[in-house]
Amino acid sequence: MRVLGVDPGLTRCGIGVVDGVAGRRLSMGAVGVIRTPAEAETAERLVLVERGMEEWLDTHRPEAVAVERVFSQHNVRTVMGTAQASAVAMLCAARRGLPVALHTPSEVKAAITGSGRADKAQVATMVTRLLRLDAPPKPADAADALALAICHLWRGPSQNRLQQAVAAQRLKGTTR
Amino acid sequence: MRVLGVDPGLTRCGIGVVDGVAGRRLSMGAVGVIRTPAEAETAERLVLVERGMEEWLDTHRPEAVAVERVFSQHNVRTVMGTAQASAVAMLCAARRGLPVALHTPSEVKAAITGSGRADKAQVATMVTRLLRLDAPPKPADAADALALAICHLWRGPSQNRLQQAVAAQRLKGTTR
Repeated sequence: MRVLGVDPGLTRCGIGVVDGVAGRRLSMGAVGVIRTPAEAETAERLVLVERGMEEWLDTHRPEAVAVERVFSQHNVRTVMGTAQASAVAMLCAARRGLPVALHTPSEVKAAITGSGRADKAQVATMVTRLLRLDAPPKPADAADALALAICHLWRGPSQNRLQQAVAAQRLKGTTR
Repeated sequence: MRVLGVDPGLTRCGIGVVDGVAGRRLSMGAVGVIRTPAEAETAERLVLVERGMEEWLDTHRPEAVAVERVFSQHNVRTVMGTAQASAVAMLCAARRGLPVALHTPSEVKAAITGSGRADKAQVATMVTRLLRLDAPPKPADAADALALAICHLWRGPSQNRLQQAVAAQRLKGTTR
């Protein structure tokens, strides 16, 4: 199973592709960041995030997309951009019929390090080890996107398939 | 000039189309609401908002889109959905090259009623009067969407054209 993880953001949107099966060895497909200029209008930045997402989805053909669940208790200014970038990531995946899963930062940390309160360095260290990389992926958003994909793979494919079937059924019922 | 106003939301996304020129008579093109089922996954709901927006844009061919600016100091649970729905509305407009303007609720209230602290009923009354309607548009989200479009028209087209030119230039520079 191939999962594309997204650590959403308007300035830097981390993207990581991981192949694997629950309980087996993992391997990294690709990792990178979609960037948009801070001086651009939000609407233009969202168009650029969409273009970037489409490129990643076209190139890597994941079977599922895992996006970090955004909470509004964070920094007031950045949380809106994060929520908006996550909306575009979810939209791009869902309109292709791909299942979209949301995982909270603490779910991801717990899945990767065993502790929901692990810091960024610890997550990056574990991502590097689990994917047998030579060095931690940079920037941190890229490492976080890989962590999201790993978290998603480890939750088990049966649960994800169920979600996928339900999502497909719902969209079918509402097609114009 | 024809403006499509959007009062973003996942449960109800208000849409209103208004024709007019700054300082002249206004007329309503259309008004309505895009609804998505509360029990659906967020990603699916965003796909439905996108489909709805595309239908409105195809049918009414506005020259500009005005979207309510979302703040995160509101209700924690609803603000995320509002931010995500607004992202989809902005994306749909911007990728067609339409200028997108954001107006705060108090800017809209001040434009329509003369007071940034006017209540919903007062806004609905003025929308009804300005557009010479027989009754206030229902639900409130639909009236708010018309108010956004009126606010945008009254800010004057020169400012909007400038924004449009800047936006077009920026996107051109980053096209792949």
